[in-house]
Amino acid sequence: MITIAVDAMGGDHAPKSEVEGALRAVRSLDVAVNLVGREQIIREELDQHGKWQNLPITITHASEVITMEDSAAKAMRTKKDSSIRVAARLVRDGHAAGIVSAGNTGAVMATSKLVQGMIRGVSRPALATAFPTLIGTPTVLVDVGANVDATAEMLAQFAFMGHIYSRAIFSVHRPRVGLLSIGEEEHKGNALTHATTPLLKQLPIHFIGNVEGRDLYTGLADVIVCDGFIGNVALKVSEGLVEVFKHILKESLSSSFTRQVGAALAKNAFTDLKKRTDYSEFGGAPLLGVKGVCIICHGRSNANAIKNAIRVAAEYSSNRVNEKIEEGLAGLNDSAASA
Amino acid sequence: MITIAVDAMGGDHAPKSEVEGALRAVRSLDVAVNLVGREQIIREELDQHGKWQNLPITITHASEVITMEDSAAKAMRTKKDSSIRVAARLVRDGHAAGIVSAGNTGAVMATSKLVQGMIRGVSRPALATAFPTLIGTPTVLVDVGANVDATAEMLAQFAFMGHIYSRAIFSVHRPRVGLLSIGEEEHKGNALTHATTPLLKQLPIHFIGNVEGRDLYTGLADVIVCDGFIGNVALKVSEGLVEVFKHILKESLSSSFTRQVGAALAKNAFTDLKKRTDYSEFGGAPLLGVKGVCIICHGRSNANAIKNAIRVAAEYSSNRVNEKIEEGLAGLNDSAASA
Repeated sequence: MITIAVDAMGGDHAPKSEVEGALRAVRSLDVAVNLVGREQIIREELDQHGKWQNLPITITHASEVITMEDSAAKAMRTKKDSSIRVAARLVRDGHAAGIVSAGNTGAVMATSKLVQGMIRGVSRPALATAFPTLIGTPTVLVDVGANVDATAEMLAQFAFMGHIYSRAIFSVHRPRVGLLSIGEEEHKGNALTHATTPLLKQLPIHFIGNVEGRDLYTGLADVIVCDGFIGNVALKVSEGLVEVFKHILKESLSSSFTRQVGAALAKNAFTDLKKRTDYSEFGGAPLLGVKGVCIICHGRSNANAIKNAIRVAAEYSSNRVNEKIEEGLAGLNDSAASA
Repeated sequence: MITIAVDAMGGDHAPKSEVEGALRAVRSLDVAVNLVGREQIIREELDQHGKWQNLPITITHASEVITMEDSAAKAMRTKKDSSIRVAARLVRDGHAAGIVSAGNTGAVMATSKLVQGMIRGVSRPALATAFPTLIGTPTVLVDVGANVDATAEMLAQFAFMGHIYSRAIFSVHRPRVGLLSIGEEEHKGNALTHATTPLLKQLPIHFIGNVEGRDLYTGLADVIVCDGFIGNVALKVSEGLVEVFKHILKESLSSSFTRQVGAALAKNAFTDLKKRTDYSEFGGAPLLGVKGVCIICHGRSNANAIKNAIRVAAEYSSNRVNEKIEEGLAGLNDSAASA
């Protein structure tokens, strides 16, 4: 059985969401969970849910907690016994296949990279997020914040890793990979997209050329590649606009004219909106390129989001995503060397 | 009376939206409109609306039309008698205060820059778009596509021009200017934001530091500055998500359970959504930094959007936005020289 280490102290609702998510995961999936953090607190939270001693759940004590306010660099230097660090060590030492954390994203990325290490051939890990689309299969955006000022070579690796991820987790047979730009035509873009296009054309992936911001939602591409600065802005623009929509729906409801008749519709629309725009439904954002697995969840993650992230971490491991990335990159280097 | 030259051949619904928008503008505002394009077609369209000969509307013939498919560079070289070019010449020669076009954005920007010329002291014009916010006053995002690979010095000028624009058009007394980045803290960003921050701190504007993608909608800043590549992605991500939201509302409506009771609410929600997310309501995107005025509208603009753009063009001119930009930049150079 695959074991996933869950940072129990990470999110805004820690350890409540983490503990409940872990319980849901071990009850519904073929997975074991190692909850990492302050043992006493975790144990008390587990006890709230009745008998858990027969479930595949263990606790690993970690005395320190990295907060959202901590800078990643400082946390790495000073908090050597943080729940994130201890969880990453469990992966490094072979006690867990991967980690799930809703904690400080910068600290999780830096810790995972340092402690778990990188897959052979990967120059930088990249954070991938799945966006809901109107046609069903989510679109993977990579990178959404691990690397700013990325080079063309880095984007090419992100594209390749996104391709492997889309195949392994979303079962897309031949993922369409697009380059995020400001127009479909190849000449529309900036210095980075112009340098990246020829590299993407050489990769053994189905590169479909430039895509635009709106294509995060159209389903035109299965994987969209961009620099981490741009991906992060795109992600947060989306989050901001979803908040506006929710607000508009609520306001429409509060008008006395429609309060009565609108209740049923609003319930539908809200549920639908939540389902369609809730990134947590897709199981968090994997940090592609590190050894083992690292799934980063939104700080606001609820138990369901944590459960989904544990599911994705287990699938990521059992579908051998890392092995496929390593083999693929080695193959690319071989063909480059023989060319 | 201020005269605005309107490219009558530009948008997806040209000349219908342009002609109707011009008629609405001259009937409700203290403005004259010069419709530029194929005279016969414009005249016929005007005649559809009854007697217009006593209104302050004129027609200037232009034999060529730049399509959305034309590359900006080629259109500039080959179509010297395009409606966009003739309209820009009217401004250059003092016959109109500014142009409004819903045509090919790249061609309009390039033509306006070349024919109208740039304000003294401006190194690059920048496209500004007003985003609706929950608190009322729109947030101006600049640049949304005129310049990719912008330098820190260019972003500083965009910030200053955005500051003047927000004051003049949205009557914000002391606009809060933010730098689009991936975290509020100053150290979070990329090479460009790190180089830009010290320049923005030196400007006589109310610089509030980094803002994030979600702040396009929170109203935290009145002006948000970014590179044109990023601004364009942000704009199109928003457009894509608005489409998703409309789709969800429609789907919720089509369920038989709620079809009856939901009609009233849906009408409200749709109207509200449209009003809150319809950038055209704000009167198009001004190209800040060119002599005269250049307002670029979405290709899908309806008559109301064109009318609003004509209104903004007239206000831009009567509020002396360009003079204020020129004086401000001269002042900056003077203080830099004496420092």
